Amino acid sequence: MSEINKLFSSDLHAINLGMESFKDDMIKQDISAIQVKWSPPARGDKKLISLLNKLIDNEEIDKANDKVYEILMSSKMTLVGVEQAIDVIPNMDEDTILHAGPPITFENMPGPMKGAVIGALIFERKAKDADEAVALATSGKIKFSPCHDHQTVGAMSGVLSAHMIVHVVKNETFGNYAFSPIHEGSGYTVQRYGSYDEGVIARLDWLNQEYRPALNDALKLCGGIDSGSIIAQALHMSDECHNRNKAGSSLFYKSIVPYLLQTPYEKDIILRVSEFINSNEHYFLSVTMATSKAQLDAANGVKNSTIVTALARNGYEFGIKIAGLGKDYWFIGPAQMVDGLFFPGYSIADSNPDMGDSAISETAGLGGFSLGNAPAIVQFVGGTVADAISYVKSMYEITWKENKNYTIPFLNFRGTPCGVDIRKVVETGVLPIITTGIAHKERGKGQIGAGIANPPMECFTKALIEFGNHFE
Amino acid sequence: MSEINKLFSSDLHAINLGMESFKDDMIKQDISAIQVKWSPPARGDKKLISLLNKLIDNEEIDKANDKVYEILMSSKMTLVGVEQAIDVIPNMDEDTILHAGPPITFENMPGPMKGAVIGALIFERKAKDADEAVALATSGKIKFSPCHDHQTVGAMSGVLSAHMIVHVVKNETFGNYAFSPIHEGSGYTVQRYGSYDEGVIARLDWLNQEYRPALNDALKLCGGIDSGSIIAQALHMSDECHNRNKAGSSLFYKSIVPYLLQTPYEKDIILRVSEFINSNEHYFLSVTMATSKAQLDAANGVKNSTIVTALARNGYEFGIKIAGLGKDYWFIGPAQMVDGLFFPGYSIADSNPDMGDSAISETAGLGGFSLGNAPAIVQFVGGTVADAISYVKSMYEITWKENKNYTIPFLNFRGTPCGVDIRKVVETGVLPIITTGIAHKERGKGQIGAGIANPPMECFTKALIEFGNHFE
Repeated sequence: MSEINKLFSSDLHAINLGMESFKDDMIKQDISAIQVKWSPPARGDKKLISLLNKLIDNEEIDKANDKVYEILMSSKMTLVGVEQAIDVIPNMDEDTILHAGPPITFENMPGPMKGAVIGALIFERKAKDADEAVALATSGKIKFSPCHDHQTVGAMSGVLSAHMIVHVVKNETFGNYAFSPIHEGSGYTVQRYGSYDEGVIARLDWLNQEYRPALNDALKLCGGIDSGSIIAQALHMSDECHNRNKAGSSLFYKSIVPYLLQTPYEKDIILRVSEFINSNEHYFLSVTMATSKAQLDAANGVKNSTIVTALARNGYEFGIKIAGLGKDYWFIGPAQMVDGLFFPGYSIADSNPDMGDSAISETAGLGGFSLGNAPAIVQFVGGTVADAISYVKSMYEITWKENKNYTIPFLNFRGTPCGVDIRKVVETGVLPIITTGIAHKERGKGQIGAGIANPPMECFTKALIEFGNHFE
Repeated sequence: MSEINKLFSSDLHAINLGMESFKDDMIKQDISAIQVKWSPPARGDKKLISLLNKLIDNEEIDKANDKVYEILMSSKMTLVGVEQAIDVIPNMDEDTILHAGPPITFENMPGPMKGAVIGALIFERKAKDADEAVALATSGKIKFSPCHDHQTVGAMSGVLSAHMIVHVVKNETFGNYAFSPIHEGSGYTVQRYGSYDEGVIARLDWLNQEYRPALNDALKLCGGIDSGSIIAQALHMSDECHNRNKAGSSLFYKSIVPYLLQTPYEKDIILRVSEFINSNEHYFLSVTMATSKAQLDAANGVKNSTIVTALARNGYEFGIKIAGLGKDYWFIGPAQMVDGLFFPGYSIADSNPDMGDSAISETAGLGGFSLGNAPAIVQFVGGTVADAISYVKSMYEITWKENKNYTIPFLNFRGTPCGVDIRKVVETGVLPIITTGIAHKERGKGQIGAGIANPPMECFTKALIEFGNHFE
């Protein structure tokens, strides 16, 4: 039998590159076929390919990225306090309001973020109602600024005013601090989703007046809590530390209650303070975010590094920062819609584009990058357990190394993908995967689902081009 | 080319049955080969095969096993209190000492169990020292009786005397109760491993005098804690609920502290009581054991059922009970050595044969049967993550159904293997897998490792023969 006839008389196992429908047709004819996920580098863009040729396998850049990796791995993060924003956040004042994502005007803010600003102004007693608040917000007297530009990260709208309280996390190794507003709990009547009713304002007041001093005293008493260690443990207890925070919140509760019991406060105060934590399975997300921010900020400004130090969205645009160009550069593209599971009665038509600084988790190798730790989460964000694993595997293609401190037992304790490299994103076309909550597009309607989001490729190509302009 | 020549000119993929060394030889010659794990039914024992032929695919038995499954699945277990043994355990008195596993004399008890009896007699103020305690234990004045025969399960030596305290779990669906001694913590200076120094006795006193009333009041205040629900959640947080109890213990702490804070006790007492729980990652094992016992006892006495309701070891012998013959029958064989990882400085030569009632976890579909939930545990008991999954898969071969309440996310939320069927064990030769601590063979030296244990096949063949004698 000729070789070619031998080939065609044996079972065919086809490997298809390019258009996936070719593979689908073979499957329909009962021919075993697999699709190779491949696209030409930089989707065939010749200018980008030529830039990539210069930047890929470049020793200077590789060395700089190794340095960033060492900074991230040697960082030891500690939750040291809860304070009012104005007392601790740099360049924060009575007339400044911080928000999630890259810079945005009040006019361009999505519904939930506008609502959150109204809530903040009412809480600050700068406005009596929504009309007054909107008038003030559009008067030019209020400065809006990204949380990220103030060592801060805020979930969802991330709207933060002077007297709201924040977790304070210190990077003990490098001395820098990061901040994140307290997670108010689930449900729609929370300020971060744009609610500003009496209950919401009363909760913010209580957090400032009763919760803050008690929790702060307990944190001082124990000398701070090793938040990086809690994240590492939570990953081994089926959290991915973005949309599933049940273990992290439990471990935090276990860590703080013994010290709350040693403060001079009455039992009923200790009960209220501890129950605020105990009743919220997502409480620890805020600590994880500040922890990740304190870790990544230490790497900002490492010259020649192509590692991403921020992935952030304001519900209108998506912005990223990279270590090599430091904290002052935003690379921006349109925020995307989130693909996921909706709560009963809602659909993608009700949803706001991707929003919040919580993708700092992914930037640090958590969330979508550690989905293999949290098989149970597929019930919440959609997909199968196999998807969760394959998402993680695809993130190894666009990251610099594997995280030594955050590991995945089900991948035989392999480290989570660590350090998104813009060169690899542009080369492969593989985008970071973010597990995220989905907000209703109108203010005060809260979360309506959860799912998987991606940044737009534009952020990475812009960053690569700008990086190329600076690179000698 | 002739068919046979075609065969030998193509790549060979051999499937080997029988002696595994045939396969190994092929692998050495670079021939792809797999071994089919198969042995003749009942290892070729003709009497057993003839008995199996009568009992397998028998409608009466299958119906009875379905009934047992329904009892197990509809049971709702609640931790309702902590009490002194003598106040709640049936047929318990001042002169009775309970122990793990099937019946045993003081003389035959292994070192740790003898030490635990000495500790119990000193704690009860019936003896001043070890000599007096041994004299009393061998005088005939003390009655030794298996925990299991008193609705009780005890970890390791399981030695329990009148004034020690126990968790009280109620099966709300069927009204029966089960009991388990409080887990004293890790380390070697604990009574259950045979220590009886002053600190051990002082801890038992404190548990009775300060811990019991406070925890009991908190449990009354909250109307009991749904312990079955905590187990189900802990399985989704990477516990297997026998050797890994970190999530279960955390969830229990979270459940009880708010109620402790509402009791009238002073803060320092609440701190001591709650820290006893908080400082012990295995605390919840004892609750899991009593929960499993309350569940399985409800199925004892279902006529014609071949489902196992107890797997228990006293460090000398292994005993099982089956639903169809009820609580008065023990089927016994020698306790086996445990294969696992030893703490530094110890080896199998130091270890005691398999001991403790904690295999009630496996009987209920936990522990070795839910290893697929706890990939991180392979660092503790040995093996790889793939082993953990394949252990679970092999347990489906010997169980009646899949547990609807306890599921394994990594197997796409498949239920844990539920209801060990003695027919299937004898037919397949596959033995239940138990994840277990390894005790030093001398008293007071504590745990020296952890690993995987099996019951002896003898227990199952004896049970099957006796079942056959009763079955019409």
